[in-house]
Amino acid sequence: MRADLAEHVLTVTLHRPDRLNAFTPRMMDDLLAVLDEADREDEVRSVIVTGAGRAFCAGADVSAGGGSFDHREAGARHRDSGGRVALRLFECAKPVIAAVNGPAVGVGASMILPMDIRLASTAARFGFVFARRGIVPESASSWFLPRAVGMQRAMEWVATGRVFGAEEAYAAGLVLSLHEPDGLLPAARAIAREIAGHTAPVSVALARQMMWRMLGEPHPMAAHRLDSRIMSQIGGGPDPAEGISSFLGKRPPRFPGRVSSDMPPVYPWWEEAEFRPLA
Amino acid sequence: MRADLAEHVLTVTLHRPDRLNAFTPRMMDDLLAVLDEADREDEVRSVIVTGAGRAFCAGADVSAGGGSFDHREAGARHRDSGGRVALRLFECAKPVIAAVNGPAVGVGASMILPMDIRLASTAARFGFVFARRGIVPESASSWFLPRAVGMQRAMEWVATGRVFGAEEAYAAGLVLSLHEPDGLLPAARAIAREIAGHTAPVSVALARQMMWRMLGEPHPMAAHRLDSRIMSQIGGGPDPAEGISSFLGKRPPRFPGRVSSDMPPVYPWWEEAEFRPLA
Amino acid sequence: MRADLAEHVLTVTLHRPDRLNAFTPRMMDDLLAVLDEADREDEVRSVIVTGAGRAFCAGADVSAGGGSFDHREAGARHRDSGGRVALRLFECAKPVIAAVNGPAVGVGASMILPMDIRLASTAARFGFVFARRGIVPESASSWFLPRAVGMQRAMEWVATGRVFGAEEAYAAGLVLSLHEPDGLLPAARAIAREIAGHTAPVSVALARQMMWRMLGEPHPMAAHRLDSRIMSQIGGGPDPAEGISSFLGKRPPRFPGRVSSDMPPVYPWWEEAEFRPLA
Repeated sequence: MRADLAEHVLTVTLHRPDRLNAFTPRMMDDLLAVLDEADREDEVRSVIVTGAGRAFCAGADVSAGGGSFDHREAGARHRDSGGRVALRLFECAKPVIAAVNGPAVGVGASMILPMDIRLASTAARFGFVFARRGIVPESASSWFLPRAVGMQRAMEWVATGRVFGAEEAYAAGLVLSLHEPDGLLPAARAIAREIAGHTAPVSVALARQMMWRMLGEPHPMAAHRLDSRIMSQIGGGPDPAEGISSFLGKRPPRFPGRVSSDMPPVYPWWEEAEFRPLA
Repeated sequence: MRADLAEHVLTVTLHRPDRLNAFTPRMMDDLLAVLDEADREDEVRSVIVTGAGRAFCAGADVSAGGGSFDHREAGARHRDSGGRVALRLFECAKPVIAAVNGPAVGVGASMILPMDIRLASTAARFGFVFARRGIVPESASSWFLPRAVGMQRAMEWVATGRVFGAEEAYAAGLVLSLHEPDGLLPAARAIAREIAGHTAPVSVALARQMMWRMLGEPHPMAAHRLDSRIMSQIGGGPDPAEGISSFLGKRPPRFPGRVSSDMPPVYPWWEEAEFRPLA
Repeated sequence: MRADLAEHVLTVTLHRPDRLNAFTPRMMDDLLAVLDEADREDEVRSVIVTGAGRAFCAGADVSAGGGSFDHREAGARHRDSGGRVALRLFECAKPVIAAVNGPAVGVGASMILPMDIRLASTAARFGFVFARRGIVPESASSWFLPRAVGMQRAMEWVATGRVFGAEEAYAAGLVLSLHEPDGLLPAARAIAREIAGHTAPVSVALARQMMWRMLGEPHPMAAHRLDSRIMSQIGGGPDPAEGISSFLGKRPPRFPGRVSSDMPPVYPWWEEAEFRPLA
């Protein structure tokens, strides 16, 4: 895996091009570590994830053969490695943009679902192929996929396991936009620049968690309680003052608040779910 | 604010045209009062909300300058005013139709999310600009927006804070249809007439709450229990008799049931969430 | 009702063509029984539901006149018959495909919502007409419809009660694809063949329940816990071995696992919700 920081964007490149960037335990460790770094480092305003060579990620590395999915030894303690990446993405303070440059299959397809924004090259292909391999949707994709594209489309993709093209992914809303291969990273960087150049880091970190967490709340009162409390804690601070001042002055803002030090006391307002084995 | 009742529609017009209908505490009070009136008055079958002049609502009035969002004095007791409107809309017995005639920015954009149906003029523009002002999504929009347009689109709008046009709002499903400026209110009134001319007021009031409330239920059994109970309470009454009779007779229905007096005993089946400050 | 098993697909045909397949208690019983059979019989990989003659299902049989919806005698014990079908569909182990050949109105429209995939003939029409009959959305459709097409579209259809065409259903995502009348059943069968020819029955049965049940879970940790446990129970078994072997060998798979005998110990991981009358 490669990670490059430039212009406030951390670009993460899955980098086993000779294996179509097939997913390994090492890749999981690298992704968990780089997301920790992204959250810690104030210079990073957003993260782009893409693949080296012609693939995005061709799925789990099954070069070990028929026993590749055999986790009987770990038993109930087994934790799906794609799921650990998915949950880490869910907890991220910075927006994550998938730039799907080529085939994204199996865990390569499911790992992009907790990324906030997904762009695809016209060369991308997608496959939620689990049922064709005799396994089930992993990386917590049974939670993310129906929320991303609706149950009907999710079920057709998962029950058939078929691989489909970028146009279909776009029509279904799996990806936000399609690009010529050469235009993919520039498009992802344009969104990253729009974020870095115009918005307050603390606001974006709060908003990202507010929206993902509110998916689990049954009543909008939860959001009203939360946004009221956040506003009473940050509304009189320097970021809103700069936001209003730059707006009234018709100039670009320079927000002083930092994610590393200036999150309001109410953050985090949740207790992170811990993994407990299912009996 | 203006409110006009005609042909069973209460048309509510945000009316500070010289300030692009910027949102004030007074506007909140007026909206809460007019929604109470709409629910109480059987002549009102639906509500249309639009803006006077060239804007729908340009956001919170920040003419007080950099301290406009400073709620430190209220502290934990602070309640976001847009959120109070949003929750009141959520509880409405009558369908609410937004007719977005021009810019809808900040609270002007988030207040339309709990309205059931949103129509836009081609002159409309939208912006969930909170992160550009150093604040966070308010009006409980962190709950409503991802449910309206999906997480991906919601996050791109919120993380960039950019203002976008009516075509993009339509493509994303934020609004149901686009209209020439002259055709916007006629289109909203056509939907209102379709409701008033063909459907039972008690049925619509029940259905509106059934659908919003069921978003918070984890299992469809909750809906089965509820619709079974409602049917056993209203199914033998005069509205269904008239519904079947007018259908078989191929004539327009005249439903006798009134929201003010004829809701079934099971209504309301929820205890309304109360505001409690977040610790 | 007719049910025909061929090529691993159970085709269920609502069969009261002279009454536009109007829904009766008998039809409910038949549907509950045939879904039990579909789940029990390993030869059945998926189910197609369609209508005989020119309609799919014109709604509840109201030939008894104005008292057709009178359930006062049963009172709190009344259970909506469409809802019993909807909940049975929700629990299905096999994917269900609606092939909507003509008008689908009232319960004819709401019963297709818990079916996984919905295809429509260009001759199809749809109507969530409950409020025009003085009743409310049944078959638990207040839960299913906003999840299928979003709240805005759902509310406009339900509050107006109007009947609309196949093109509008397709544009709203109510149906996955449109077909010439002659092409409807072939298209449904093509999806069924794609499922039967390429995927593991146990995988599909698990995935179907994983995705429907995860709609009710507030946090993706629930999915991570579940897919991790399932993988530790099935990952070392014969289906994944065959899945990997056939993939590496570039040949069609022959999965040995059967739904009747080879579901993992963790299945079912839920306690099925029981009907209890609403007080």
